[in-house]
Amino acid sequence: MILDKINSPEDLKKLPIEELDDLAAEIRQGLMNRLSKIGGHFGPNFGIVEATIALHYVFNSPVDKFVFDVSHQCYTHKILTGRKYGYFDDSRFNDISGYTNPDESVHDFFNIGHTSTSVSLACGLAKGRDLRGAKENIIAIIGDGSLSGGEALEGLDFASELKSNFIIVVNDNDMSIAENHGGLYSNLRALRESGGKSECNLFKAMGLDYIYVNDGNDISSLIQAFNKVKDIDHPVVVHINTQKGKGYKYAETNREEWHWHSPFDPETGAPKGGYNGESYEGNTCQYLLDKMKKDEKVVTLVAAVPVVIGFTEDKRKEAGSQFVDVGIAEEHAVAMASGIAKNGGKPIFATNSTFFQRTYDQISQDLCINGNAATLLNCNASVYGLNDVGHLGIYDIPMMSNIPNLVYLAPVNYEEYMAMLDWSIEQNQYPVAIRMPCGPVKHTDEQVDTDYSSLNKYKVTKEGSGIAIIALGNFYNIGEDLAAKIEAATGVEPTLINPRYITGLDTELLEKLKTNHTKIVTLEDGILSGGFGEKIASFYGPSEIKVFNYGLKKEFLDRYNVEDVMRDNRIVPELIMEDLGL
Amino acid sequence: MILDKINSPEDLKKLPIEELDDLAAEIRQGLMNRLSKIGGHFGPNFGIVEATIALHYVFNSPVDKFVFDVSHQCYTHKILTGRKYGYFDDSRFNDISGYTNPDESVHDFFNIGHTSTSVSLACGLAKGRDLRGAKENIIAIIGDGSLSGGEALEGLDFASELKSNFIIVVNDNDMSIAENHGGLYSNLRALRESGGKSECNLFKAMGLDYIYVNDGNDISSLIQAFNKVKDIDHPVVVHINTQKGKGYKYAETNREEWHWHSPFDPETGAPKGGYNGESYEGNTCQYLLDKMKKDEKVVTLVAAVPVVIGFTEDKRKEAGSQFVDVGIAEEHAVAMASGIAKNGGKPIFATNSTFFQRTYDQISQDLCINGNAATLLNCNASVYGLNDVGHLGIYDIPMMSNIPNLVYLAPVNYEEYMAMLDWSIEQNQYPVAIRMPCGPVKHTDEQVDTDYSSLNKYKVTKEGSGIAIIALGNFYNIGEDLAAKIEAATGVEPTLINPRYITGLDTELLEKLKTNHTKIVTLEDGILSGGFGEKIASFYGPSEIKVFNYGLKKEFLDRYNVEDVMRDNRIVPELIMEDLGL
Repeated sequence: MILDKINSPEDLKKLPIEELDDLAAEIRQGLMNRLSKIGGHFGPNFGIVEATIALHYVFNSPVDKFVFDVSHQCYTHKILTGRKYGYFDDSRFNDISGYTNPDESVHDFFNIGHTSTSVSLACGLAKGRDLRGAKENIIAIIGDGSLSGGEALEGLDFASELKSNFIIVVNDNDMSIAENHGGLYSNLRALRESGGKSECNLFKAMGLDYIYVNDGNDISSLIQAFNKVKDIDHPVVVHINTQKGKGYKYAETNREEWHWHSPFDPETGAPKGGYNGESYEGNTCQYLLDKMKKDEKVVTLVAAVPVVIGFTEDKRKEAGSQFVDVGIAEEHAVAMASGIAKNGGKPIFATNSTFFQRTYDQISQDLCINGNAATLLNCNASVYGLNDVGHLGIYDIPMMSNIPNLVYLAPVNYEEYMAMLDWSIEQNQYPVAIRMPCGPVKHTDEQVDTDYSSLNKYKVTKEGSGIAIIALGNFYNIGEDLAAKIEAATGVEPTLINPRYITGLDTELLEKLKTNHTKIVTLEDGILSGGFGEKIASFYGPSEIKVFNYGLKKEFLDRYNVEDVMRDNRIVPELIMEDLGL
Repeated sequence: MILDKINSPEDLKKLPIEELDDLAAEIRQGLMNRLSKIGGHFGPNFGIVEATIALHYVFNSPVDKFVFDVSHQCYTHKILTGRKYGYFDDSRFNDISGYTNPDESVHDFFNIGHTSTSVSLACGLAKGRDLRGAKENIIAIIGDGSLSGGEALEGLDFASELKSNFIIVVNDNDMSIAENHGGLYSNLRALRESGGKSECNLFKAMGLDYIYVNDGNDISSLIQAFNKVKDIDHPVVVHINTQKGKGYKYAETNREEWHWHSPFDPETGAPKGGYNGESYEGNTCQYLLDKMKKDEKVVTLVAAVPVVIGFTEDKRKEAGSQFVDVGIAEEHAVAMASGIAKNGGKPIFATNSTFFQRTYDQISQDLCINGNAATLLNCNASVYGLNDVGHLGIYDIPMMSNIPNLVYLAPVNYEEYMAMLDWSIEQNQYPVAIRMPCGPVKHTDEQVDTDYSSLNKYKVTKEGSGIAIIALGNFYNIGEDLAAKIEAATGVEPTLINPRYITGLDTELLEKLKTNHTKIVTLEDGILSGGFGEKIASFYGPSEIKVFNYGLKKEFLDRYNVEDVMRDNRIVPELIMEDLGL
């Protein structure tokens, strides 16, 4: 194998250009090995193999610095920078992350999990270089749908002010995660169709120099282009036309399905194992489809991740103009939802907890100050959600619940979730966010409330005494378990409470608990810092009641084991009982 | 006066076009009356008088809907929609806000204080209209520097997907608050210079239709253009070339100074009263200028509000390439700061607390996950800061202090502030944010620490017993006052603590306090919810210690009186003593 000789970009540079195509084929074998066995970002990486080889062939990493946007397209970069074991050695898959990671290699400069950040981060590297009087090349590699994100557009707009070496490679594979959305993609198309010659040019309109590479999977064209811009003295865009999923027929044909893929059989493309049962995603999709059919004013918005609520291509078609994918543009989505609600529509915007972070100001200013009745559906907001450092869903309670006017709800089972969602869509008093439950679907036979307009009324599910357990959302079942264990150990039944509302205290109930309780336990599925339990502790601060808050420490976790994290944070009935002196 | 007849847009439509120039002159009298007496956004409003008259002459508000971006350019709109009293009747200045406000009028659809939101909000109104099957015109009026904001660019990119009536008026006055920054403004210039005919066109590159009005202060040209796009069946940009500050010579000449202006003498333009003494802004500017001269690796970043750290035009020139105004692009600024720190620079990014809200995700992902040693300087983060609902500075503690890895510091006086700032710039371990003190400069004779790298070490400034007061940042002086009053009343000196670190607990000290204290009082200048005091309450939750948290309620305030707010929240030594049973 040629790859046997490649342990760093230095080794790559020794190869004659003619061998590089064979190298690309070998790299795809490594990608296929890893991806078919443990899953990962398939399409983006298969599409950018040649461009990455050409970049490392021409530039001198790590003196010259690459910043990959959505760093999930960095697999070939990892293979070429001493980490091929992560693709070829099955026992070492977990030694590397799915994103660039400075802890792994000096060739990686940032840990990047969110899109649209590369141009701004790389502008910073360029400015740092200029302040030091150094001369290295700084190269941002953006694309795969990231261009529509506000941060990327701010960065593109600013870049021309640098007036020094700065190279932006636009990897144009004509796709986001799902199909691309937004007017700028029509300009990319016009540029592709004119061989880069269209006078109307987004990048030139942003004040940037521009060159075009028609076949972005042809290594020698790419090498030629990169040589042309190497050591350039001003910012330039290199627009390369690549094929997402290149080299694997199923991925070339069905680009959305193969953007990220779970383990599969390389021969047939068929997923291995997988889950076809009931899910919150699938149920949400079905509910919303029915709702939209019955009411033409209901509209569902997503920002490039329709899958978080199960909207596959066929379902999107079924919903028609009542389904809007704004592309990677979360800020726009929240503001637009506010506007829709203001003008008679019933909008639901769904995305992952980690991506709601991109919309703090829009939730506060565009939505909550204006009090418009939009519904935000927060997916994967849980320690059980995505577990890499760039996509954690454990910070949304402090992030969102302290914004005035927002009603943030935490359902504990399927029936309550659906009742809350339906109530939220139909009411027109409040901006509402709902923490979609995470994990297997839990059903209840008990009656759930259908009206949540009397805010901050907690639900006492077991009347007891001595100890009261206030167990929020996904951790309600831990509260149930804890209650049973306490009763078994002490003979006294504790009170169990499903608070339902994250954004406010049921002060009447909390007052009442004082009469026959001495200890309060709170449980929440997220970091404690700034969250729900601390508010309960503050409420009881001046009183005799003792409060024990359970949740996660404020820290960045990466590729964690849930059980370890739960134990480290003592979110285990036995450990809690120890703390309570039982 | 013609205005005597104008109580609504209906009345305006009855006027012959020939009278509209006289009307514009009368409106400028009203603007001058209000602005010279109570201050406000001068340049943006003087520049957009004619365009606003033309909009109301052509369209049918409130059925047709206007969304003003940075709604501080809405004064003429207010005069024409029944609120002229706010400009001509000195006794009623305070009856209206400086922004659009749905509580004031059915002609206002959103309360908008942050820039770059109009296109997305208006996209929502358009989608809501389409869902209802209605036909009104939806018009976003953007400009005055707002175009460079990520949300605006996301909105522009999305707008073409609407495929129905949508009109974006780009008010191009060639200025942001300070001069414009970003490559797109070179395209606006090319469009102005070519009479709108340049083939390279940002708006067309975003997939939008486009028309140009060369004299954006000429009412009949504007009326003609707006008539052309009225009832259009697809999205279109109307690019109008206006003059910021039009009609007042000082404002036409010195556009930055007159963007917002304090009360002044209309004859001479000279500010009335005003403050020329020592200020945190001025001192920060001087410190940073000195620092940058001594160290070429230090760089100061702002996002269109250089004034928050006193960088007037002359100071910016003095700093040269070590001062970077990224324009209205806060997301970019934080990511760029992270990149600068990564590549050997020492970046400081300063903006208002309210605008840091626009960068939650960048602080978390681009900066803190990567642990780069950038300094964020948080200005006007206080109940004593800006007091309109769109610019409140009381939410940053919950917003920022719960992000892992960030070190957030709250200095209590000038010397401590400068020591923290200097330490932060020179260290390379942590991303650091500093809450710049608000209000008059306070000095101390006492020694302040110069090294803050041992995190979360609170400073005991008075050793006492019984009650401990932990008084954060701007409220430290209330803590001092409270301590003195408690000692006077009880004869026992309380312990007084300057915690300095917002982002962590000094658990060793807090443990130690248990030995000879029974009550802890916390004081913080911001909302309690998700903030500092609740963490102290949670720490002591399982113990015998009683905790009393003081800070602001979680709510949106608008044009408040500080004393009322302090009293409502019982942040008054006498009321706190009452709560403590003293």
